Amino acid sequence: MDKQEFADLIFGDNPQKRPKWFSLLEDPIFKPRYNIPLNDQRQDAYHKLKKVTDAKIMSVLDFGSDPTNIFTAHEFMGQVDPSAGTKMTVQFNLFGGSVFALSTERHRWLFPKIDDLSVVGCFCLTELGYGNNAVKMETTFVYDEATKEFIVNTPTTKSQKYWITNSVNHANYALVFGQTIVKGKNEGVNAVLVRIRDDKMDAMPGVRIVDMGIKMGLNGVDNGALFFKDVRVPREYLMNRYSDVSEGGVFKSETQNIPSRFFKVTERLLSGRLCIASLCMGATRACLYIGIKYAMQRLGVGASGLSDTPIYDYQLQQNALLPLLARSVSLNTAHNRIKSIFAHPIGKEHEVLMMCCIDKCLVVWNLNAVAVTCRERSGGQGFLACNRFGEYLNLAHAGMTAEGDNRVLMIKVVKDYMGNVGAKKSGLPKMGMCPKNQLPKVPNLVDLNVLLDLLKFREITLFKSLVATLDQRCKVEKANQFEVLQYEVSDNVQSLAQAYGERQALEFCLDQLHSTKNADTKKVFATIFTLFASDIVLRDLGFYLSHQVVSQDAAKAFINSLPTQVKALSFHTKDVIESLNVPVHAIYTPIVGDYVGYNQEPHFGEVVNAKL
Amino acid sequence: MDKQEFADLIFGDNPQKRPKWFSLLEDPIFKPRYNIPLNDQRQDAYHKLKKVTDAKIMSVLDFGSDPTNIFTAHEFMGQVDPSAGTKMTVQFNLFGGSVFALSTERHRWLFPKIDDLSVVGCFCLTELGYGNNAVKMETTFVYDEATKEFIVNTPTTKSQKYWITNSVNHANYALVFGQTIVKGKNEGVNAVLVRIRDDKMDAMPGVRIVDMGIKMGLNGVDNGALFFKDVRVPREYLMNRYSDVSEGGVFKSETQNIPSRFFKVTERLLSGRLCIASLCMGATRACLYIGIKYAMQRLGVGASGLSDTPIYDYQLQQNALLPLLARSVSLNTAHNRIKSIFAHPIGKEHEVLMMCCIDKCLVVWNLNAVAVTCRERSGGQGFLACNRFGEYLNLAHAGMTAEGDNRVLMIKVVKDYMGNVGAKKSGLPKMGMCPKNQLPKVPNLVDLNVLLDLLKFREITLFKSLVATLDQRCKVEKANQFEVLQYEVSDNVQSLAQAYGERQALEFCLDQLHSTKNADTKKVFATIFTLFASDIVLRDLGFYLSHQVVSQDAAKAFINSLPTQVKALSFHTKDVIESLNVPVHAIYTPIVGDYVGYNQEPHFGEVVNAKL
Repeated sequence: MDKQEFADLIFGDNPQKRPKWFSLLEDPIFKPRYNIPLNDQRQDAYHKLKKVTDAKIMSVLDFGSDPTNIFTAHEFMGQVDPSAGTKMTVQFNLFGGSVFALSTERHRWLFPKIDDLSVVGCFCLTELGYGNNAVKMETTFVYDEATKEFIVNTPTTKSQKYWITNSVNHANYALVFGQTIVKGKNEGVNAVLVRIRDDKMDAMPGVRIVDMGIKMGLNGVDNGALFFKDVRVPREYLMNRYSDVSEGGVFKSETQNIPSRFFKVTERLLSGRLCIASLCMGATRACLYIGIKYAMQRLGVGASGLSDTPIYDYQLQQNALLPLLARSVSLNTAHNRIKSIFAHPIGKEHEVLMMCCIDKCLVVWNLNAVAVTCRERSGGQGFLACNRFGEYLNLAHAGMTAEGDNRVLMIKVVKDYMGNVGAKKSGLPKMGMCPKNQLPKVPNLVDLNVLLDLLKFREITLFKSLVATLDQRCKVEKANQFEVLQYEVSDNVQSLAQAYGERQALEFCLDQLHSTKNADTKKVFATIFTLFASDIVLRDLGFYLSHQVVSQDAAKAFINSLPTQVKALSFHTKDVIESLNVPVHAIYTPIVGDYVGYNQEPHFGEVVNAKL
Repeated sequence: MDKQEFADLIFGDNPQKRPKWFSLLEDPIFKPRYNIPLNDQRQDAYHKLKKVTDAKIMSVLDFGSDPTNIFTAHEFMGQVDPSAGTKMTVQFNLFGGSVFALSTERHRWLFPKIDDLSVVGCFCLTELGYGNNAVKMETTFVYDEATKEFIVNTPTTKSQKYWITNSVNHANYALVFGQTIVKGKNEGVNAVLVRIRDDKMDAMPGVRIVDMGIKMGLNGVDNGALFFKDVRVPREYLMNRYSDVSEGGVFKSETQNIPSRFFKVTERLLSGRLCIASLCMGATRACLYIGIKYAMQRLGVGASGLSDTPIYDYQLQQNALLPLLARSVSLNTAHNRIKSIFAHPIGKEHEVLMMCCIDKCLVVWNLNAVAVTCRERSGGQGFLACNRFGEYLNLAHAGMTAEGDNRVLMIKVVKDYMGNVGAKKSGLPKMGMCPKNQLPKVPNLVDLNVLLDLLKFREITLFKSLVATLDQRCKVEKANQFEVLQYEVSDNVQSLAQAYGERQALEFCLDQLHSTKNADTKKVFATIFTLFASDIVLRDLGFYLSHQVVSQDAAKAFINSLPTQVKALSFHTKDVIESLNVPVHAIYTPIVGDYVGYNQEPHFGEVVNAKL
């Protein structure tokens, strides 16, 4: 295959940016340190981020001109340091991106300061009691006409701003969300800029910042809980793109429905989901590179009884790792397409939210599977911190929850899906080669068109069954729709969102396949995408058989085809992992290099002074 | 249900031991600390272990009289401190248990010292290059007739003893495994006791101990790499129960086959697997307790739009957590039975290895699933170290690899299975209520007898297909059996081992069901075991449909039955989790108690000074 073409397609951005990143990551600051105090971990993460911003390789203004550039930054940082990547996503997307989206002329002074970290921001949305249902948050901004200020308060324990990244060590500003009270009326959730530290980095009066301490991972991220007591903020610090308060205390908004204002001001969560997906996609590629590279050099027992056989050669190893490689490359392909639709959504505006949500869910859960499996298949070496699987796994966990719990986002996807179909903005997928009544006659399912039709069939079936149940329960039996959704049809909702995401991903893969130039590259991609789709159909085979769209004989043959498909991919694995754009020089994992040599000298689990 | 009866059955040991453990764990030493240096984490783990041994609640001699007592200790330590539990399993099982099993009269002085930690041991089996295929290890003991000593060497980088628990901080002795060279002949792998530190805890001459540093978790365990250079050990330090060297240098062994000696001296790995399973089973119970208890008090949005509904009420939460609860209680039931068969194997000697291996595999992987899901369903709170999911997850990862990689053990299970059937020591399971030709007519699969027959059908089918393939490839086509097993039939092998383990677990569950006294308790157990088996059949539904033992209509009805089954269990969940014998007073997780109150005062992620 043409490794360059493969790598460029996986890169998902202008490939000319790649050498800049590769050279930036040569800086020794990206060498990880492990046994260091918590505070040093945080400073380390900050200094890595500072190295990136000093290189002027990205800007918050990219959201206007080249949002993909920001996602690319996340993909690299997810590989080299998930903590620094998390600090970055808060600075550039949640904080910076929100300021970009919600600000007006009067806030422009912030942009260069965000880019060079002279303003380090945090994003104070989540409250202890409102991690879900944030629209009901208790933080208030009361407008004081006399002084033309907002008075910010977190009036209860439950309303402390919780999990606030960058707050403990580095932030001097915060974008705070709260119920906006003007002339005694709650005008809904808005955002104000609050200075939280002075020039000496002491907390401002009325601001209390509590360190949240040790987490299961990403300890380079300084998460804190923030309390505000009568903190006064100038009127102009309100982010007033969509709503504003006049000096005299008149509230105006282009959004009349008060709860809707919440969604308007928190829309950065949307690009945030692509940022999280990007961090995790990067980590996935690194994880697979490390796990497979190690398997290719680690020796296990061979037919002679001697330790002379790379464990990669075992079918066990290949059957565990290669379906995940196929799924990862396929989701990467879909992720790239979704990034570009986000950047240029013309004609797809109504689908962007669904796409960003499902992209995060599928990519993050896939990282979890990849990290767990690579760790397990790398045995003891996989358990050492310096071989990195642990931190990628922790990133997956952070990703599942951050910017919206995956399972809750799946519900959001389905609601939008039903809404779009109901409003005729979009329809259900159309089965192509094989309409439903043809499928049961297909003897060989291992064909991309057949597989795509199977995925579509499942999606359509799940959609229809959900709509039928909701109609019956809510329209006929007059049950409360919220209750039916929450208490009766959860599996249907979750499965439908997944079916939508996977079908769409496969379609994006096929689109790319058609435009791949080199015939060998095309073949490798086809092998990968076929395995991706087959693995999905295998998982849901009970569904297909019980719906009689697959015959028993075809199912048996299909089950047997999987190891053959894995074997076909196994011959290309080395080329594939070397084309994942992993900055190998900045990964510093003993097991991708001469791990025996690494263990010749004492390194105490560290890599700083090791030759790798 | 009768919570006492339920709890006693889950406890799996004499329930009179429970209050002793509960009261021991009241000691404040079991309060965890998080943001402390690596060395303090290790000392903490040691002091917890010391507290346990000071209570004289267990002894290495229990392996002779009451091995279950040792497993019970592991179950408690898995809940309160996986690091201390890991140090304990090395001291009492791998080191102490090996000494118990391989020693003769001349080593008896060690037993009381192992019990009171005046001898702290390590188990030097694994080498850097021989984590798998340990029988080919490179460490040597050369017998020197002149001085009547063994000379111990790790001659190469690859032969350094790797991952050695207790070695960096606390051990003064090691049980070292190596190729035993007597009069120039390699007599295979044996074990010698080596003093590695003097009374001042300085390393003995020729012994070098390198700290392995930070791992993804269990950092309270002091893992090191050990190098031996011409270390002299008295002849009497050879563990000589099965093999011995006379003063004059004559090697004698009751095992004539040299490679077999390896399995004889490493047999503690067998009880070790039950120890690992016990640590993980304990952790599983605690994990479920924490995750479900939190869900029952954490409020999310309700029909009114207010945050007034415990997230436990959501079907999403129940469908995610309760099948895992069912599987965990069922595997716990099987685990208890296997512990007791290990203690009294009469008539089952040929199955003990299979049982111990599969118990570890199923229990450990289940802990991984439980920890991942509880963490995810607990959102951000689940990510804080003090809520413990992270460390339980890390324990699962350690467990997958320790005492034999799970996937490799699955191969061992299948080899023993085929050997036992071949030697007519045991047969294939017999289908009971519903022989194969009856199954397709069963309209309702939700019946324990039907489910058991389905599990048996799959096991028998997988067994026969594996044997048929091996016969064809090896006997007819003369292929090398090792190569066929490693390169061609991996999925069949892995699926068969799993099918065997799950079918056996369900049978053990049914046995217990028959002897459960209280009718309500029995009902709850039946609900749990049915969900456990249903979940398995659902996962493999494609297999059952393609083999035409389940009709399409039965399959559809069955898929729809799962949420109903979950709902049925949901009403008993509180009673069930409160009957898991979790020492709640020693878990110290803010989210099982008043987590809002915990967040009222700054605790910096710690629990030491918190009211919980």
